[in-house]
Amino acid sequence: MRIAVVAPSCTLKREAAEAVQAIVGRRGDCELIVHPQCFLLEGHFAGPDAARLAALRDVMADPTIDAVWFARGGYGSNRIAEAAIMDLPEAAATKVYLGYSDAGFLHAGLYNQGLRVAWGPMPQDVLRDGGEAAVSRALDWIVRRDPQALEPALDGPAMAFNLTVLSNLLGTPLEPDFTGVDLLIEDVGEHLYRIDRSMFHVTASAAIQKVRRLRLGRIADVLPNDPDFGADEAFIVEQWCTRSGIPFGGRADIGHDAANRVVPFPTESR
Amino acid sequence: MRIAVVAPSCTLKREAAEAVQAIVGRRGDCELIVHPQCFLLEGHFAGPDAARLAALRDVMADPTIDAVWFARGGYGSNRIAEAAIMDLPEAAATKVYLGYSDAGFLHAGLYNQGLRVAWGPMPQDVLRDGGEAAVSRALDWIVRRDPQALEPALDGPAMAFNLTVLSNLLGTPLEPDFTGVDLLIEDVGEHLYRIDRSMFHVTASAAIQKVRRLRLGRIADVLPNDPDFGADEAFIVEQWCTRSGIPFGGRADIGHDAANRVVPFPTESR
Repeated sequence: MRIAVVAPSCTLKREAAEAVQAIVGRRGDCELIVHPQCFLLEGHFAGPDAARLAALRDVMADPTIDAVWFARGGYGSNRIAEAAIMDLPEAAATKVYLGYSDAGFLHAGLYNQGLRVAWGPMPQDVLRDGGEAAVSRALDWIVRRDPQALEPALDGPAMAFNLTVLSNLLGTPLEPDFTGVDLLIEDVGEHLYRIDRSMFHVTASAAIQKVRRLRLGRIADVLPNDPDFGADEAFIVEQWCTRSGIPFGGRADIGHDAANRVVPFPTESR
Repeated sequence: MRIAVVAPSCTLKREAAEAVQAIVGRRGDCELIVHPQCFLLEGHFAGPDAARLAALRDVMADPTIDAVWFARGGYGSNRIAEAAIMDLPEAAATKVYLGYSDAGFLHAGLYNQGLRVAWGPMPQDVLRDGGEAAVSRALDWIVRRDPQALEPALDGPAMAFNLTVLSNLLGTPLEPDFTGVDLLIEDVGEHLYRIDRSMFHVTASAAIQKVRRLRLGRIADVLPNDPDFGADEAFIVEQWCTRSGIPFGGRADIGHDAANRVVPFPTESR
């Protein structure tokens, strides 16, 4: 099992790459190929758009690579996602693509092309408290589809997205077909008024109203609201579900933390 | 000329209301009716949704009111905008509706119903440095349609929106028809990566791609980007215009500041 790491958003920290290589070495059941592009830095990004795109296209086209693991989130994968899914090489369809947060733009585009994608921990997560467990969980799923790695209440087709990323891909060519899926959302580093605004936007979308249920992961590192917002994230999300007629399916075990679980996107008829 | 002030988003400061009343008193060409709802406070908002909606509907239905002036921005008008435009009373069509920022959700919805709306300074702006000029500019336009108040390069049908508000109303029932308009945008208090992400989202929208041109107002109080983003707001906006094929129409004299000008939405065939 050969796993390639590329960074379509922001730069991977070298100490994270080294720590994950050490974990992989101890496991002995896979090989990790960290693309040098991961360490590029140009402004906000892990190198210019062209370099991030080229690295991703490289590993997608490589028939010896079994999985593409996005190094980390941040911001930037939307800038290359449409180009990444054009004229796909045959080898692109033989792999799985794992990541979360900003990688959602790629998840959506790759899923639209019939590729196998999954939400789950990324290499840079090794630097979190308990990060080795997060990385091991991702590898357990990549290498042997360990069901212990999965979000525990998955029940039928599901997708997972960062709420703000989801809001920003609606109406773009990356928008996937949400019909009948359980949609798991989470967010990090937002004010509650922004969570409320994103929920307004997302639940008003005709595309989103086709989901089976909406489930709420963790809303972490909420920024202070002045004055206090007056409601918590569960109340906000349930209220917008009620207003839009989308069934609320309860909490979900995903988030920007070491406990984040794997959510494979639907593969039926793929 | 009777001008009603309501607060569909956040609470108006009493000292702002008093300062604007003083300006109106000195002018002697209009009367300002500040709805008591403006001073309500419930969590983030100027009172519960029901109170903000009722105040807005009150003044919309009042045939003695010539203009509805939104007290200030913040967040919250999206929560009542769809209800505000249902079963419109006849008197709603005889007025003009002025404001900006979060009021964009209402602008869009009211415009869709054929009402006359305009982007422009709000009562709370009186508290800014140079705020009396901003408020006087808005009143000059409300009372006598003073062309000096207008954004100076307006040339044909135009709309103005806060970029983040615009991003959050696309695909909702509030989305207006942008065909052939000059679209003026501005923003405040965002990181540049968020401006880039919102520009991706907005320019990828089929609805937005119908504009004649996109013009860039001020991007104020930009939050620090770590690392430095690597491009300024003008580069970001022009780049997304180029990528999406939307003509870039240069800078615009609007923003979250005392220099903010008035941009009336199209009224042809209305």
